[in-house]
Amino acid sequence: MSPRTTIGVFDSGFGGLTVLRALLPLVPNAHYIYLGDTARLPYGAKSQTTIARYAVESAKFLEDNGADRLVIACNTATALALPDITDHVGIPVTGVIAPGAQAALAAATNTDILVLATAATVASHAYRDVAATFGLQAHEKACPLLVPLVEEGWTQHPVLFDVLRIYLREALDEMRALGQTPSAVLLGCTHYPLIAGPVAELLRELGSDARVVDSADATARAVTAAMNLPAATTTADATFNCYATDSVEKFARLGSLFLQREIAEVQLLDLGG
Amino acid sequence: MSPRTTIGVFDSGFGGLTVLRALLPLVPNAHYIYLGDTARLPYGAKSQTTIARYAVESAKFLEDNGADRLVIACNTATALALPDITDHVGIPVTGVIAPGAQAALAAATNTDILVLATAATVASHAYRDVAATFGLQAHEKACPLLVPLVEEGWTQHPVLFDVLRIYLREALDEMRALGQTPSAVLLGCTHYPLIAGPVAELLRELGSDARVVDSADATARAVTAAMNLPAATTTADATFNCYATDSVEKFARLGSLFLQREIAEVQLLDLGG
Repeated sequence: MSPRTTIGVFDSGFGGLTVLRALLPLVPNAHYIYLGDTARLPYGAKSQTTIARYAVESAKFLEDNGADRLVIACNTATALALPDITDHVGIPVTGVIAPGAQAALAAATNTDILVLATAATVASHAYRDVAATFGLQAHEKACPLLVPLVEEGWTQHPVLFDVLRIYLREALDEMRALGQTPSAVLLGCTHYPLIAGPVAELLRELGSDARVVDSADATARAVTAAMNLPAATTTADATFNCYATDSVEKFARLGSLFLQREIAEVQLLDLGG
Repeated sequence: MSPRTTIGVFDSGFGGLTVLRALLPLVPNAHYIYLGDTARLPYGAKSQTTIARYAVESAKFLEDNGADRLVIACNTATALALPDITDHVGIPVTGVIAPGAQAALAAATNTDILVLATAATVASHAYRDVAATFGLQAHEKACPLLVPLVEEGWTQHPVLFDVLRIYLREALDEMRALGQTPSAVLLGCTHYPLIAGPVAELLRELGSDARVVDSADATARAVTAAMNLPAATTTADATFNCYATDSVEKFARLGSLFLQREIAEVQLLDLGG
């Protein structure tokens, strides 16, 4: 019997727990260490040098604590620090952006995709650039109110539907003006899997038949592919530890929404200023 | 003729520009230096030690660059770092919380006030504690979606009205359950002066005759009182410089909304990690 794999999952906050949630049933015979660098979030407003330093510190913590594989479950860290992380750790690293774009390619029936993301991710154009290598034209739409709405727990609230309808209508209009019709809509933020249902519902309402693609799910599938694992659908044996760099109470409370299971214990970690 | 006063105004971001906006006509014959520590915002999620270190660094920068008076135009920094700042600089310091609570006292016709603020400010209970010293009972209501809505520029948007109606109805219901009826509603966040109109309108709609008190305006008046200045209502001679620790373009664009005048130039400042 081979020794059990330990998978380190890293995000600036709670969002990456949607990637852990997708991983648990796909790679059940593993131990997980999740680190949310909550004291230093959001990464989006910081410089590339600072983000790379933070992400490398977190990656090394996970490696030093037994991870033999790393998942960067954070769009900003993947967009701005993936090469730095790969350079500084000796274990395989998977980010969220390429798997998401690849899943959009599989779902798309033409070359036009719509990417919903935070303002910081859109400004980095990371999805547009990766999508282009797959022959896709990605229209990136910044949706700054969605993360606060999800963190407020309003994932089925009428206000969420109103805001999302505005963003989607604007995005579809912008694409129409460019002669584009999206056949896939990629959720390019780890908070958005919690509102995948409303996104799909509103696309139908707005007359779009685009398929909704979840980058958290795509990332989990990319990890199983990289590990050459057979498909699994049980969480029976999976175990996990959570670390956060600030407010463990908030992490446990909000994190349970993202992971969709109780987080009994979160350990406080000091990575410095 | 006495030499011209230089007033340093500090916030973690753009919000404090509403305090600068209120100061310009009240103290027109002054030069202002505004510092937004945008690279390290939001302060709300960080520990007291970290916030105090950041705020002291910013305060000392302003003093070293000629400020002979300091305004902490940030609720979190005032709540958690005012004594540290006062200990580390040799110039007079005014925060936003005590002036806001004092203005609420002046406006209130009973002892019940409602304070609208961010989750971090509410968790600190800074307004409740200061209000108690004035004999007021402050009910603090966390309104986490208001800052993102203001930063999205949706200050007159139907979604803003929907969200605000929910928060205000909840707050009034919570107070009613405690036997309280607010006679003043204090805007306990430097972003909220931009939505003072909708707050007043919705209070009427919900059957409340409470007066809306703006802590930015109250803070500016506290500064003139501390300086023993006569009332003035011109901005003719006032000049200002702006510094931000990240994204000077975003600061100039969003900041102009808060200041309600063009910000031609913002200088990038590195205060370290």
